[in-house]
Amino acid sequence: MTTIEPAHPPADGRMGRDARRAARSKRGAVSIPYITRAIGVTEVLSEEGLAIIERNADTLLQEVGIEFRDHPLSIELLKGAGCDILGSRVRFPRGLARKLCATAPSEYVQHARNPARNVVVGGKNTVFAPNYGSPFVHDIDKGRRYGTLEDFQNFVKLAYACPYIHHSGGTVCEPVDLAVNKRHYEMVYAHMKYSDKGFMGSVTRPERAQDTVDMCAILFGAEFIQSNTVCTSLINANSPLVWDSTMLGSAEVYARNNQACIITPFILSGAMSPVSVAGTLTQVLAEVMAGVAFCQLVRPGAPCVFGTFVSTLSMQSGAPTFGTPEASLAIYGAGQLARRMNLPFRTGGSLCASKIPDAQAAYESAQTLVPTIWAGTNFVLHAAGWLEGGLSASYEKFVMDFDQLGAMHVLAKGVDLSENGQAMEAFHQVEPGGHFLGCAHTQSNFESAFYRSSISDTNSFEQWRDEGGKDAPTRANAIWKKTLAEYEAPALDLSVDEALRAFIDKKKASMPDASY
Amino acid sequence: MTTIEPAHPPADGRMGRDARRAARSKRGAVSIPYITRAIGVTEVLSEEGLAIIERNADTLLQEVGIEFRDHPLSIELLKGAGCDILGSRVRFPRGLARKLCATAPSEYVQHARNPARNVVVGGKNTVFAPNYGSPFVHDIDKGRRYGTLEDFQNFVKLAYACPYIHHSGGTVCEPVDLAVNKRHYEMVYAHMKYSDKGFMGSVTRPERAQDTVDMCAILFGAEFIQSNTVCTSLINANSPLVWDSTMLGSAEVYARNNQACIITPFILSGAMSPVSVAGTLTQVLAEVMAGVAFCQLVRPGAPCVFGTFVSTLSMQSGAPTFGTPEASLAIYGAGQLARRMNLPFRTGGSLCASKIPDAQAAYESAQTLVPTIWAGTNFVLHAAGWLEGGLSASYEKFVMDFDQLGAMHVLAKGVDLSENGQAMEAFHQVEPGGHFLGCAHTQSNFESAFYRSSISDTNSFEQWRDEGGKDAPTRANAIWKKTLAEYEAPALDLSVDEALRAFIDKKKASMPDASY
Repeated sequence: MTTIEPAHPPADGRMGRDARRAARSKRGAVSIPYITRAIGVTEVLSEEGLAIIERNADTLLQEVGIEFRDHPLSIELLKGAGCDILGSRVRFPRGLARKLCATAPSEYVQHARNPARNVVVGGKNTVFAPNYGSPFVHDIDKGRRYGTLEDFQNFVKLAYACPYIHHSGGTVCEPVDLAVNKRHYEMVYAHMKYSDKGFMGSVTRPERAQDTVDMCAILFGAEFIQSNTVCTSLINANSPLVWDSTMLGSAEVYARNNQACIITPFILSGAMSPVSVAGTLTQVLAEVMAGVAFCQLVRPGAPCVFGTFVSTLSMQSGAPTFGTPEASLAIYGAGQLARRMNLPFRTGGSLCASKIPDAQAAYESAQTLVPTIWAGTNFVLHAAGWLEGGLSASYEKFVMDFDQLGAMHVLAKGVDLSENGQAMEAFHQVEPGGHFLGCAHTQSNFESAFYRSSISDTNSFEQWRDEGGKDAPTRANAIWKKTLAEYEAPALDLSVDEALRAFIDKKKASMPDASY
Repeated sequence: MTTIEPAHPPADGRMGRDARRAARSKRGAVSIPYITRAIGVTEVLSEEGLAIIERNADTLLQEVGIEFRDHPLSIELLKGAGCDILGSRVRFPRGLARKLCATAPSEYVQHARNPARNVVVGGKNTVFAPNYGSPFVHDIDKGRRYGTLEDFQNFVKLAYACPYIHHSGGTVCEPVDLAVNKRHYEMVYAHMKYSDKGFMGSVTRPERAQDTVDMCAILFGAEFIQSNTVCTSLINANSPLVWDSTMLGSAEVYARNNQACIITPFILSGAMSPVSVAGTLTQVLAEVMAGVAFCQLVRPGAPCVFGTFVSTLSMQSGAPTFGTPEASLAIYGAGQLARRMNLPFRTGGSLCASKIPDAQAAYESAQTLVPTIWAGTNFVLHAAGWLEGGLSASYEKFVMDFDQLGAMHVLAKGVDLSENGQAMEAFHQVEPGGHFLGCAHTQSNFESAFYRSSISDTNSFEQWRDEGGKDAPTRANAIWKKTLAEYEAPALDLSVDEALRAFIDKKKASMPDASY
């Protein structure tokens, strides 16, 4: 397990110019495995408030219950565990759901094919993964259009090249140019081929989850994956209070194979939950407990993440809204609930409703990301690239968000109180009214002192104007193009690659294309 | 003293359509006096860390000392209080500075000419004031140019019209079209005439501070201002470790007259302080204690605010940088130090380095504002309009920031755990798989449920595109123009207005224009 790495590779300050240039040119190879937070958490609920929400969630599970639809196994397992069953409605006697969740680990290692990219999900760790699920992609050259496999591969490559993104993610965009029933093969393969970071599996059908597991067996070895987690996948509730057969079936496949599930109520408050933060958190807790309980019944000890995707609706238009104060409060509150369950926590990201990477996108994203960090989130999906309520994956926003993630690495290190950090020697080197730029303390901390933004323009107005007066997305445009141009794939054992392709080709040949 | 008002005027939900329309048309008249925070604070320093910084600050005050330059009164007072004096260098025996600060009040009321706009600075309250000190102004029509009195008046009018801005501020932009030695008259007059919210006084010379006090005596009555604070002014240290005669002389005038001073180290870390957060916080504490001690020696009990303006430098170019993780840590840490001194706290705002109101501006501003809120800041200068490291006051950014301030009002209310907030009735009104939009709980909370952004576009892509595909600044442009077009000045007693103009005209006629 690794503690936090400096935002700037530590060797950098000690290398000569040539070595630094060489290191920069191999930027994709430099990666920070994940953040281990040295800062605390921000809390919005008192002990009393938490107790109210937990009591209400138990009431909800007992009195209203949760639907487990079209999935006989879940009914059977939950009945056996002591739930009251009426058709697909499952009611949990008070306290039972929480008790069933107790076998889930508080943290787990997700192995990557490059062990240096393994991530520990849980505890004081934070793992950033890119945008997930967008049917469209957006860049400032071509505007908005449907995503393709090429776009998908591009985002995988960008995430691979970005040292502050720790995980390759899942459906970084939807490759709409491929048949729905065969898409997942190329998606999972792209993560395996074009990155060596951890990834997420298919959840659109249980058999596609099984395909993911089978491909993982090829990549990691069948034996390895039975005792190690190599995949973290997204299992969304059909809120309010419904788990459907697609998600349950996929969760079942992953849990049975000891692979991690992020059990996530996906809620736009006001439509899929009550129009209040406390009511929404109550529902989140009930839905998570029910989902995790099911996974633990499938395989006690299977890794589960307490997921929360909460935003709000415009009560005027019904449109989803992001970066709102209510979403912020829900993020903090859900973190508190997750910690009390001793489960890894997923929420937030860099969410926004804007259609373009403008100021609205940035305000809303930062108003989501900052709470995400201070809520103690362990797995951050949608950390980079999210645009238009998730409908678009933006190339420029990916680059801008990535820079924010770098800043969060530094924030998470907290205040350095070492003797060097206290800097008392500097005060004896500089007279009142003098300046610290040239003093020995500054010189010896020069390289690593402050986070260096890759996107912010801090030049004078005149210099900025003379260089074309570019806005942030215009600068980001150049960065993602350069990153893709310089991309080099991590080596993949040829026999493994061939075995993966053989598996995929055989599977794809076995069925006609379908749009479902 | 008022507790937090709802972000949406509470009567709104109970009014008929005509009444709501009438209320909206008088928007400038609706104002929230200030925020009283129901949320906690975020902390980045342990008790041990705080003790280290406090010990180091005392060491700094004792061993290095602070320059009090060209201001014999301060030397005399500090000598009398027990400091060691060597020329202009003042060294404080360990613990003395803190002891001298103890007479400063933990909170104070700043009276406005409209008592409904009085603000309480300190405690759990947060007061938002606009941008301060920019020589340039910027809008997307005309770009960047020097500020004029008309711009100054426009920003005063915008701040007056904005319900989430509680205070009229000070040098909202620099009216460069007026002679330097006469500018302050028109600036102070503009605050008095075009707004009825509290304001800040001139600090560019002690006699200009006195002019401010004299004008306040006309507006509020000479007797009133001797026992009440009607002005909060900005006293910046000449960091590192220097208080100059301009600032000391102005502070002296205000303190002697029981008017509030924000004692603010203005620091770009790495140049004006050591290149570390802990070292910078040490210097902040030392400079604040020295400045507040002086004010308390002038008049024990004079209101003083623990000010902190900290950002970072690019160690590559030397340019100021904003919204950085180090600045964020310093904001939180300074808040902790201020609370331990039992002083009101000023920091942060909506700071950025961008030259235009783009995504960079927004990311950096939100990365400053969110810490500002969670640090428990009591007085937030630069809350709206700041652009280009403070060199420009932006019309569009003012509108966009203002919307963020509205969101912070809702955040500060925390999680509603009332029976209505818990929303358990809603779960009995909506079946699993149903939706909450139409249920009775949602209907009864419809109007006030979620913060309504004035600037975010949450429409569908198609609708947004068909309406012109506008970015956030373009929408903001329309809003500030509409706000100014609809502006109506608050009534000002004609005799008071005439007395103010007579005072100003006499003063201006008494001296030639000067550029210093």
